Amino acid sequence: MRTQVGIIGGGPAGLLLSRMLAAQGVDSVVLENRSRSYVEARVRAGILEQHSVQTLTDLGLGERLHREGMEHHGIHLQFPGTKHHLDFPALCGRTVWIYGQTEVVKDLVAAQLDGGPPLLFEVTDVQPEDVDGDSPRIRFTDSDGVPHVLECDVIAGTDGFHGVSRPIVAQAGGRTWERTYPFSWLGILADVAPSTDDLVYAWHPDGFAMHSMRSPSVSRLYVQVDNDDSVDNWSDDRIWEALATRMAHPGWELRTGPISQKSITPMRSFVSAPMRRGRLFLAGDAAHIVPPTGAKGLNLAVADVTVLATALVRLLQEKETDLVDAYSDTALARVWRCTHFSWWMTSMLHRSGDDFDAELALSQLRRVCTSEAAARELAENYTGLPIG
Amino acid sequence: MRTQVGIIGGGPAGLLLSRMLAAQGVDSVVLENRSRSYVEARVRAGILEQHSVQTLTDLGLGERLHREGMEHHGIHLQFPGTKHHLDFPALCGRTVWIYGQTEVVKDLVAAQLDGGPPLLFEVTDVQPEDVDGDSPRIRFTDSDGVPHVLECDVIAGTDGFHGVSRPIVAQAGGRTWERTYPFSWLGILADVAPSTDDLVYAWHPDGFAMHSMRSPSVSRLYVQVDNDDSVDNWSDDRIWEALATRMAHPGWELRTGPISQKSITPMRSFVSAPMRRGRLFLAGDAAHIVPPTGAKGLNLAVADVTVLATALVRLLQEKETDLVDAYSDTALARVWRCTHFSWWMTSMLHRSGDDFDAELALSQLRRVCTSEAAARELAENYTGLPIG
Repeated sequence: MRTQVGIIGGGPAGLLLSRMLAAQGVDSVVLENRSRSYVEARVRAGILEQHSVQTLTDLGLGERLHREGMEHHGIHLQFPGTKHHLDFPALCGRTVWIYGQTEVVKDLVAAQLDGGPPLLFEVTDVQPEDVDGDSPRIRFTDSDGVPHVLECDVIAGTDGFHGVSRPIVAQAGGRTWERTYPFSWLGILADVAPSTDDLVYAWHPDGFAMHSMRSPSVSRLYVQVDNDDSVDNWSDDRIWEALATRMAHPGWELRTGPISQKSITPMRSFVSAPMRRGRLFLAGDAAHIVPPTGAKGLNLAVADVTVLATALVRLLQEKETDLVDAYSDTALARVWRCTHFSWWMTSMLHRSGDDFDAELALSQLRRVCTSEAAARELAENYTGLPIG
Repeated sequence: MRTQVGIIGGGPAGLLLSRMLAAQGVDSVVLENRSRSYVEARVRAGILEQHSVQTLTDLGLGERLHREGMEHHGIHLQFPGTKHHLDFPALCGRTVWIYGQTEVVKDLVAAQLDGGPPLLFEVTDVQPEDVDGDSPRIRFTDSDGVPHVLECDVIAGTDGFHGVSRPIVAQAGGRTWERTYPFSWLGILADVAPSTDDLVYAWHPDGFAMHSMRSPSVSRLYVQVDNDDSVDNWSDDRIWEALATRMAHPGWELRTGPISQKSITPMRSFVSAPMRRGRLFLAGDAAHIVPPTGAKGLNLAVADVTVLATALVRLLQEKETDLVDAYSDTALARVWRCTHFSWWMTSMLHRSGDDFDAELALSQLRRVCTSEAAARELAENYTGLPIG
C-alpha cells in the first residue's frame, strides 16, 4: 500500500485533514483502531467556533450542521446576584454554533465513506517507522488480522493523547507542560428541552455549574465535583438539586427530565512541543489537551489541521518546506493562546483554593460583566481568533 | 479637645482626608505617631493615577506635582524577544504621573501646617473609644507627654496595616483575606538619569525586573528575589548585572550610577471587611494591602478618602446616613478591582510556580501585546477606573 499522507487516528482531526487534503488533490489513508459505531458514539464537546463552522462548510460538511445545529450569539455568565449576557456579535462580530463533536464525526465519516479517501476501522498494531527519513511508513494490522505496510510521504499523528504518535516525536527530544486541576466535571445528557437560550456558565460557592445543550430536546449539564468523586454518589435527584441550587436566579426555573448519560471528566492542561519530528506531524489531542471550559479542544484540532493541510500541500505539490518547517511554531502559538484562555475560564469559574481565590474569581467575573474591554477579550477568545 | 473628625494616621490617606474635609467646612485633627522628618522620608510608590492627580490638583496641591512630576503616556512590557509599548491615551484616554508618594506627603504636610487643620506628630498611646455610639473619642498622649481626650463626631482610621484602628473594627466581626506571594522585590534608588522614557516591566526566566524613576536624575529599579534573600547578598555590581540581564534588549543600554538606597519589600495582598464599625471608618492601608505591581496602594487610599470625605460631609452637614452606610461596600468594590488587578499584574510578570505557570504568563503577555481588548483592559485598570 502507498499513499501521500498516512493519517493515524480517525477522530475529527484525522478525518478533517484527510478531507482537506483530498480537496486539494493530495491522497491519504486514515487508520482508526476503534469501530465506526464506537467513534460515532463518543460524547465530546459541543461548541464550534465560527472559523470551525466556516471550515466545515467550505469542505461541503455544513448541510446538517446548518439544519440541526444552533447558532448562539452569546453566553450567560452567572454568580450569586448576577446573571449577565455577553453579546458576541456586538463585542466581536462573531458567533458560535452548538453542534456536538459526535455529529461532526458522523458527518465526516459519512463523507469519507462516500467516495473519500480510504478509512480503515479497527486496525491494530499501528506503528510509524523511519519518520526521520523521506520515506516513512506505517505498519498496521487490518480488522481481518492481515498485516500491512503503508508507504507514505508524510505521516499525520492525529491519534489523541493516548496514541502511538506523540511518544515517537518525544523520543527525539522536546518538552511537555502539564497542569492537573483539583476538580472534575460531572456531566449529564438529559432528554429535556434546554431551560436557557444561550449557554449558562455559573460560579457558585458550592462549585461551578453549566447548562449547555445538544439539540432543542436534549440538554447537557455539568457540575463541578471533587476528583475522587464517583457517579455512584450522584443520584438523578442530587444532580438536579445541585444544578438548581448553583444556577438559581430569580424568575428562572430549571426544567428536569430523564438523564440518559452520566460521566465524570477530569480537567487537565497538557502541551507537547515540538509538534513535529521529521515527516511525522502531530495535530489535535495528540499534542495538547485543554480543560473543557471554553470548549477549545475540537476547535484547536480544526485549527491545527487547517495549518497542517496547507503546509503538506505545499510540501507535496510544490516541494517547498517553508510551511512544514513553520508548522509546529505556528500551531503552538494558537495552542498556548487557547491553553491560557481555557485555564483562565477554568480559574474564573470554579471553586478552588482559598477564599482569596474565590474573591479573585468573583472580581474577574464582575469585571467581565461591566467592562467592554474585558468582555470583548473573553468574546474574541471564545468565538475563536483568526487562524495562522 | 473637640473636633468633628478625628483622624488617626498622618500618611497620605489621613492628610488628604483632612484637607478634603476642610475644603468643605468640616473640622478635623490629624494624629501621627511618627515625626515629621520620618513621615517625609518614607520611600513608597511613585505612580499616580489620573484621578489622583486630579484630586490633588483640585485641592490646591498640584503646583509642585505639575512642575516636578513627569506625565507618562504608557509603559513598556518586555519579555525575551519582545519589548512592547502600551499607549495609554490611545487605549483609554488617560495618563499617569510619576511623582513619589514621599513628595505627595511633603506637599500635604506643608499645606496642613500652613493654616490647615491641626496635625500632631509623635503622639503616643492612641486609643479610639466608644466607636459604636454617637460620641466617640480618641485618647492619646502628645509629643510633650501630656495626655489628651479628643472628642469627635466620627473617627477615621488611616493608620496603616499595623495601626490601632483595624483591630477595633475587627473585634465586632468581619472577615479578612490574605495572600503572601512567594517572592519579594529588591528595590534600589540610584543617582542616575533613567535609561527609559516610560517605565519598563520585564518578565525574564531569572525573575521580574522593573525600571521606574523618581525624577530626571534619580532612577528607581527593582528585581524579583526570594523571600528569604537579603540585601547583604546583593552587591551594587550584582544588582546592575541582574537588571542588565533581565531587561536586555537589542539597541538598549542600562545606565548605572551610585546606589543611594537598597531594600527588600515582601509582596502581599490583604483585604479586611467591613471598612467601618459604627463611627470608625477605615481607609487606605489600614483596610487593605496590594503588592506594588501596578502601583495601586496610594491610589486606592486616595479613592477611599474621596468616597469617605463625601460621605462624612453628608453625615455631618446634612445629617443623612445613606453615604456612610454605603461607604464600606462602595470602597470595597474598588478595593477588590485593584486587588485583582494587582494580583493579575503580579502573576503575569513574576517567575513563580512551574514551567506551565511561566508559559501562562508569557501567553498573557503576548496577548496584551497583540490584542487591543487585552491591552485596553490593562490600560484602563493601570491608569485608574472612575471613582465611586
